[in-house]
Amino acid sequence: MILLAQSNGQISRRLAADLADVESRFAAELHSDLSCVNELAGHIERYRGKMLRPTLVLVSAMAVDLDADGVREAHRVLATVTEMVHMATLVHDDILDEAEMRRRGATVNHLNGNETAVMLGDYLISHAYHLCSSLSDSQISRMVAAATNTVCEGELLQLANRRNHQLDEPTYFEIIRRKTASLCGACCRIAATISRADESQAAALDAYGQKLGIAFQIVDDVLDLVGDEGTVGKTLGLDLEKTKLTLPVIHYLREETPEHRAALARLLDRLADASVGPDRRAELTSQVRGLLRGSASLDYARGWAGRLVDEAKTQVAEHLPESPARALLIEMADAVVSRRY
Amino acid sequence: MILLAQSNGQISRRLAADLADVESRFAAELHSDLSCVNELAGHIERYRGKMLRPTLVLVSAMAVDLDADGVREAHRVLATVTEMVHMATLVHDDILDEAEMRRRGATVNHLNGNETAVMLGDYLISHAYHLCSSLSDSQISRMVAAATNTVCEGELLQLANRRNHQLDEPTYFEIIRRKTASLCGACCRIAATISRADESQAAALDAYGQKLGIAFQIVDDVLDLVGDEGTVGKTLGLDLEKTKLTLPVIHYLREETPEHRAALARLLDRLADASVGPDRRAELTSQVRGLLRGSASLDYARGWAGRLVDEAKTQVAEHLPESPARALLIEMADAVVSRRY
Repeated sequence: MILLAQSNGQISRRLAADLADVESRFAAELHSDLSCVNELAGHIERYRGKMLRPTLVLVSAMAVDLDADGVREAHRVLATVTEMVHMATLVHDDILDEAEMRRRGATVNHLNGNETAVMLGDYLISHAYHLCSSLSDSQISRMVAAATNTVCEGELLQLANRRNHQLDEPTYFEIIRRKTASLCGACCRIAATISRADESQAAALDAYGQKLGIAFQIVDDVLDLVGDEGTVGKTLGLDLEKTKLTLPVIHYLREETPEHRAALARLLDRLADASVGPDRRAELTSQVRGLLRGSASLDYARGWAGRLVDEAKTQVAEHLPESPARALLIEMADAVVSRRY
Repeated sequence: MILLAQSNGQISRRLAADLADVESRFAAELHSDLSCVNELAGHIERYRGKMLRPTLVLVSAMAVDLDADGVREAHRVLATVTEMVHMATLVHDDILDEAEMRRRGATVNHLNGNETAVMLGDYLISHAYHLCSSLSDSQISRMVAAATNTVCEGELLQLANRRNHQLDEPTYFEIIRRKTASLCGACCRIAATISRADESQAAALDAYGQKLGIAFQIVDDVLDLVGDEGTVGKTLGLDLEKTKLTLPVIHYLREETPEHRAALARLLDRLADASVGPDRRAELTSQVRGLLRGSASLDYARGWAGRLVDEAKTQVAEHLPESPARALLIEMADAVVSRRY
């Protein structure tokens, strides 16, 4: 967890212990009597990242219930469930279309091909709900499933807008609100529900999680365009590759001079052409990056992320009592915009 | 529903009404505020088939509770959930690997490509659990999720055995027990649980559902090899295409003369070669069918299906009271082996 390096004291140690517990529960839930299944489940370790969603659950739990026992059994279960759901979406994001496969070569899917990746993702989703329904209160499962319904809608809306160079800002925000923010908001709200926090606290945490989630996605999109691949630790330029328009590109196509806009549109059209080979494609991507680096569009996107993070911090500052957990929520929000990976 | 044509009387009319209600609930649950999502959800109508799983839920409910009100609200919800889960697996079964895509052409996935099919399947799964967790008893969701865990394991075991020409009969049965039988058994058992039936009835229905499920899958596998495409109403030969060995092939490779076995093995090797074009592939598939038609292997597989159906019928005959619903369960089992589509 990236945040622990910056944070100190007792709360960080408790969080680290709780996240280790989430990892154990995760592995235990996925264990099968079939060795071929366990072997595949082992592969998903490579998807594990910042554990943002379980962290949101656990720190929200601490922030609404200041007792040492703020994190309850149901929170640990929920934290594991949200990480499992998130991992499933990452595995399914690796599924490729025919054109992309041809373009990127057969080695890109490390999980023995598309079909195995689909089924492994399904296995994760199924176990997430299985674990969640071990809680006697079916309302928790209902809230998690409502969030995953929304996540799927966001993904479908994004797919419906592939190759749409007219994608506008409201639709972009609608996509990431559903795809990313809804689950982050649900992590915080359900944690509050489990603790029987009052509605003003639950609503503030929900808003905090959603705003942080949108900011997180915007920063992700900026890094995909101009991050350093070694630092970020994953393949970049995939949004262009998948012809998904993100905030800096949308801004550029709206605000730049007609010549610049035409230049970017031409590059995007070329990238959307499945017959373009990998070398030419890398060159085109590099040209897109060059255009964006010299423009105001990256700062525009970063400005959005900054404002959303400020709003997220205001929510918790105004509605939650002062505590080390609240300070950590604020620190987490700041980390979303300052991160370079 | 295929069975209604053969069955008569009040129970068939009640079942038809309940199945129509399931279809309404299905559509209502999937409705979104996004038109692009509703449009995609409309596509899945083309996957709707025999509604075997909701029928198992509803008729099991009638068979353990002989009142006119045998089918409760929770049964209707469960019936809708199981159909949604099944539809999700059908949508995800349409995801193709690179080799298959090249082989079968870009038109095979009607749903705007692999990525959309993945997300639409996920949308169905998410809504299935969302609907299921509307029931206050989280035990129902837990049982459904346990069944879907097993279904995913079966799919993963099957994928791990692709291109395995040494696949043995116990592993084949293990695959279809998990992939198909577990959900059918769960439909019957959970229906009994909702009705608070005693364990002997629940266990008998579970065994009935599982045996019927295995028989159903064997007959499906036989039809995939030697059915008439027009009658079955779907593309056949896909198991060979996907290099999945099924019971008749396993029997042939074990029991035929060395020369015949070698001939079939050669054909399967050729079919497993991704570089073989579609015309040559159709020719090879036709040769495989020719070999099997002249052998004892189809009857061997049909014999297995027949014995399992007999065992399924014995379970309900011995443990459930005589009733029109019990008679319908027996009729459904017979229909599994007699069907030609």
